[in-house]
Amino acid sequence: MSRKINVGIIGAGRIGKLHAEHLAYRVPDANIVAIADVFLEAAEKCAADLQIPSAVQDHREIMDNPEIEAVIICSSTNTHSQMIEEAAAVGKHIFCEKPIDFDLTRIDRALEAVDKARVKLQVGFNRRFDPNFKRVREMVAAGKIGAPHILRITSRDPAPPPIEYIKVSGGIFLDMTIHDFDMARYLIGSEVAEIYAAGGVMVDPEIGRAGDIDTAVITLHFENGVIGTIDNSRKAVYGYDQRVEVFGSQGMVAVSNNTPDTAAYSNAEGVHSSLPLFFFVERYTDSYVAEMRTFIECVQQDKTPPVTGMDGRIPVVMGYAAKKSYQENRPVRLNEKLEIRN
Amino acid sequence: MSRKINVGIIGAGRIGKLHAEHLAYRVPDANIVAIADVFLEAAEKCAADLQIPSAVQDHREIMDNPEIEAVIICSSTNTHSQMIEEAAAVGKHIFCEKPIDFDLTRIDRALEAVDKARVKLQVGFNRRFDPNFKRVREMVAAGKIGAPHILRITSRDPAPPPIEYIKVSGGIFLDMTIHDFDMARYLIGSEVAEIYAAGGVMVDPEIGRAGDIDTAVITLHFENGVIGTIDNSRKAVYGYDQRVEVFGSQGMVAVSNNTPDTAAYSNAEGVHSSLPLFFFVERYTDSYVAEMRTFIECVQQDKTPPVTGMDGRIPVVMGYAAKKSYQENRPVRLNEKLEIRN
Amino acid sequence: MSRKINVGIIGAGRIGKLHAEHLAYRVPDANIVAIADVFLEAAEKCAADLQIPSAVQDHREIMDNPEIEAVIICSSTNTHSQMIEEAAAVGKHIFCEKPIDFDLTRIDRALEAVDKARVKLQVGFNRRFDPNFKRVREMVAAGKIGAPHILRITSRDPAPPPIEYIKVSGGIFLDMTIHDFDMARYLIGSEVAEIYAAGGVMVDPEIGRAGDIDTAVITLHFENGVIGTIDNSRKAVYGYDQRVEVFGSQGMVAVSNNTPDTAAYSNAEGVHSSLPLFFFVERYTDSYVAEMRTFIECVQQDKTPPVTGMDGRIPVVMGYAAKKSYQENRPVRLNEKLEIRN
Amino acid sequence: MSRKINVGIIGAGRIGKLHAEHLAYRVPDANIVAIADVFLEAAEKCAADLQIPSAVQDHREIMDNPEIEAVIICSSTNTHSQMIEEAAAVGKHIFCEKPIDFDLTRIDRALEAVDKARVKLQVGFNRRFDPNFKRVREMVAAGKIGAPHILRITSRDPAPPPIEYIKVSGGIFLDMTIHDFDMARYLIGSEVAEIYAAGGVMVDPEIGRAGDIDTAVITLHFENGVIGTIDNSRKAVYGYDQRVEVFGSQGMVAVSNNTPDTAAYSNAEGVHSSLPLFFFVERYTDSYVAEMRTFIECVQQDKTPPVTGMDGRIPVVMGYAAKKSYQENRPVRLNEKLEIRN
Repeated sequence: MSRKINVGIIGAGRIGKLHAEHLAYRVPDANIVAIADVFLEAAEKCAADLQIPSAVQDHREIMDNPEIEAVIICSSTNTHSQMIEEAAAVGKHIFCEKPIDFDLTRIDRALEAVDKARVKLQVGFNRRFDPNFKRVREMVAAGKIGAPHILRITSRDPAPPPIEYIKVSGGIFLDMTIHDFDMARYLIGSEVAEIYAAGGVMVDPEIGRAGDIDTAVITLHFENGVIGTIDNSRKAVYGYDQRVEVFGSQGMVAVSNNTPDTAAYSNAEGVHSSLPLFFFVERYTDSYVAEMRTFIECVQQDKTPPVTGMDGRIPVVMGYAAKKSYQENRPVRLNEKLEIRN
Repeated sequence: MSRKINVGIIGAGRIGKLHAEHLAYRVPDANIVAIADVFLEAAEKCAADLQIPSAVQDHREIMDNPEIEAVIICSSTNTHSQMIEEAAAVGKHIFCEKPIDFDLTRIDRALEAVDKARVKLQVGFNRRFDPNFKRVREMVAAGKIGAPHILRITSRDPAPPPIEYIKVSGGIFLDMTIHDFDMARYLIGSEVAEIYAAGGVMVDPEIGRAGDIDTAVITLHFENGVIGTIDNSRKAVYGYDQRVEVFGSQGMVAVSNNTPDTAAYSNAEGVHSSLPLFFFVERYTDSYVAEMRTFIECVQQDKTPPVTGMDGRIPVVMGYAAKKSYQENRPVRLNEKLEIRN
Repeated sequence: MSRKINVGIIGAGRIGKLHAEHLAYRVPDANIVAIADVFLEAAEKCAADLQIPSAVQDHREIMDNPEIEAVIICSSTNTHSQMIEEAAAVGKHIFCEKPIDFDLTRIDRALEAVDKARVKLQVGFNRRFDPNFKRVREMVAAGKIGAPHILRITSRDPAPPPIEYIKVSGGIFLDMTIHDFDMARYLIGSEVAEIYAAGGVMVDPEIGRAGDIDTAVITLHFENGVIGTIDNSRKAVYGYDQRVEVFGSQGMVAVSNNTPDTAAYSNAEGVHSSLPLFFFVERYTDSYVAEMRTFIECVQQDKTPPVTGMDGRIPVVMGYAAKKSYQENRPVRLNEKLEIRN
Repeated sequence: MSRKINVGIIGAGRIGKLHAEHLAYRVPDANIVAIADVFLEAAEKCAADLQIPSAVQDHREIMDNPEIEAVIICSSTNTHSQMIEEAAAVGKHIFCEKPIDFDLTRIDRALEAVDKARVKLQVGFNRRFDPNFKRVREMVAAGKIGAPHILRITSRDPAPPPIEYIKVSGGIFLDMTIHDFDMARYLIGSEVAEIYAAGGVMVDPEIGRAGDIDTAVITLHFENGVIGTIDNSRKAVYGYDQRVEVFGSQGMVAVSNNTPDTAAYSNAEGVHSSLPLFFFVERYTDSYVAEMRTFIECVQQDKTPPVTGMDGRIPVVMGYAAKKSYQENRPVRLNEKLEIRN
């Protein structure tokens, strides 16, 4: 029988609460010892709801707690790399929400700390654990479609985030496409060598004034020859659109959206079916649960997490390459000299 | 190379014109020599449109024309059996629209005439030639679903015919379900032993006043043990609904409706797709063409048509059994003493 | 904020464990105080896994525990009615797995006890809480399809239960179709007046030797005129097949099966997609959770449960009517004199 | 009533025969007077099959025939522009298969001749007449998706043409993508300003040795801001893959492949459905018929054909831009100095 893993959660915002709830109710082998948030009330509320014994303001109390074996980092992005370093320094295993950081130097320092401390680090690219995408990856890896030739990813949000968030988001490529960059690498099992990004402001001119774009179509040249495209929009009125397709020499595999029900309603106007599940919380619940279970299992059984620090770093590099490509309207190689901070 | 078959068409109403057009344009080995209709103008109009050399009022001119090898009987139902007898008497091959007749004695006399004359007779159960249903039959016959256990047929019209037609139609079981009775026998490849019919007047009370029903759900007990259901409605607001499903020990095969296009439109309200093809002319065009090609080919190559006189007779018996079952609210065996005329 | 409800669970078999897990992890307002099972070890194992404070052999300890406000009856079917009476006698609210009993006299006695004690009783027809079927019911109730005319239910299991279970199951109508009888009443919102059941032994002759059938097609005459059909098979090789369709004057609504993923794989042989979720545990998880949440909420807020004692009784009557109909091969009215025990 | 249009067909190869058959059987207002082919036997065979009065070797006999009002140019691509000039010179209306030519100078000369002669010219981009794509265009034009943002076209052939054909085809962009370039302009209703083409040899190295590629992913920047992608493969083992999707501010419309039947077969391995219709002859029959009907109607009613000479010219320019983009790995504007011949 497997021993329970004591964890501490840093950050009680939306994603922190979500992980806390899953760890409390759906990951039997996890035991939440404490939750920290700079807004103490948020931590206390979450602790009360989920019967977590301790709620603290200072994350150092979690770092210093010898009972805690692993930390779940859900604090704001600009603190991730420091939290990783601190956790590594005290020998705790780490689950960190994506992105690790927008500054490649800081990412590298954090990864180095993890390496040196020989702790485990899993980065929060939860979509890899989604049953649809997992199935596609398994079929590609099993050779069901032969040699892959073309990859298509459609990834559209139901509505843009608040403009204040947009301003500090790092831009669409680092905030939104980053998930698709990870998905592309995961599905094809090869690195991307070059990126060409087209895009524009089509959803909301306010986003343009904030220096960002809201619509993008990206071409990926993989090292193994595969060509991929990603299309992103900040606003699909019909909801969260998350589809992929991989085409190869022996076939194709594609996944469509998940819906809350399978009802088809036929009337004099047409046949009507349900919209996709609304947004990432509804759509990716299973994958969030599965990534937590996987992390806890890796700690328990001393295995390497399936989403590593490098898996966290590379999509950030891709984001910078896409940004440069868009700005200069030309394909950009990932080994070009790129920005290292946002 | 195959010789052309000279045909004469009897009846230039809706179905007569439809067959004439197919024979003229889409059955290269058929050559229409003449068309007859009691309304001479209808025959003349059709002949002009399709460049048919001769249009006549009296069908005897077709029967007596030695050039004509085969007749296509599309006159009113109450003349079918007589036309068959006349055609058989002059040694012409016969395609006859369904039903042969509503009077079993007359059907038997017509079939006897055909037998004696050794001419070919094909009855117009066109749906057997539809690509969807043909595929289902092929898969069932090939054992893909193992031993069949359950059959489901859904067959709903977009709108009821005029009440004047209803009154002389023979009732829903002989007018509408008759196609499904044929489909049931075709798909399962076994005879029906017993029928239980439930039904009611739900679409239009006028239909009830005309002594008919407009909605029916029928249970079929096949001789080989399969149990089938058919559900009929005279009015599906979303259009012509034509689906079947066969379930067996090793699997299931089902066909859904055909649509004019594959468009899926997603907006804030849902995902919307196109209604089924409107009615039998649009839906079954391919099958009408295929049944004519098959008939012409059977004449050319001296083969037995795949829809025989007995295939025309049995669904009429089933119609009477269903009617009796509905009236007496009990399962009725096909070998019970049934009505022999409407 | 809502107070937690203390519950006791009676029965730690498959369904008992399932409800216990849901109550422990996914129904925040429930608090499991104790679990009982005649096999003490089963109760103890479940208690250990879910951190339930007390595991007992004698269900009386639960009945006598004043802290416990509601009981979840998951013991063997033949004990249900007695458990209900005992719980009612001590004023506890009751969730009881279906069926209440196979003996109508005992059901009536249990329902009378519930009435007298004025406790709440919810019967475990979980499928009503499934998002697919709920959506169909909502659309029918909202008049989206106009007046309902035809109901079709397809309900097929992936594999028959062990023959030993079959022998004590009460027969296919009381064991398997009972869920569909409930579904039929729920979807149409009207009572069934008459039933005609066809069926046979097609899956396994052993089932026939046990006095049961394994395949059934049932016609339902509703009091409001709707005609319904249910088709059942104990074995669909492609998995758990759970579909319904309601057709009416203004449209149709249908739900298809749920699948573990939406992958479509195209190769030279065809387009291949995933089989339905395997069986009821996978397929109906959400509905099991929802029925527990609903029960707890009804207790908390003093509301009448949506699946009442009468909802538990009527499908048993329907089962007896179907059985008689099958045996006598004739439609049977529910107000005929029927068996009252199995 | 509309008068019949006398036509002459130039070229009795695959596409010539196809148009001849449609004009003979499915375009009632067309009357084929003569067919020409440099291989006289091909013309004679076709004439015999379709009862065309005259088969000739020299297309001049068609040009010089005063009875003929319109010509259908289906000869080899390198003769198209000359045929157009000749036909214009004798005042005949022209339907010309795509592409008009690979040499922009020659295209311009041909279009000038058409303009001067004031004859009608329709270019053979048949896919615009396909019910699926037409529906998409209609919905986009009607504003159903609001302002269009993203266009996706998937266009994959079931198998590459013979290598000898590849060598003279003009390359994938001018031979295959040219249809998709037309489709892109048609669906969005705006011109493309810039193209970025990625591609590779993935299907067959022989194609690479012939100086061509077999896989391409193309980004289109439209003048109205829309961003489009096209993905092409010379070989999809599952058949002819022809899908499009347009996404906009108020919704999305997408069309999937057409299949020969709607059968879904479920067995223990999965749910299996039919492959797309095999190739362009099967897939686009309706669109070929519709484009001929439209052309004949435009001649009859003196209307401008919906696919003009400029619609024939622009995709050739796009093909050259794509080629240059691929060769130089950079986005290329359509108003750059491009090659004007292949």
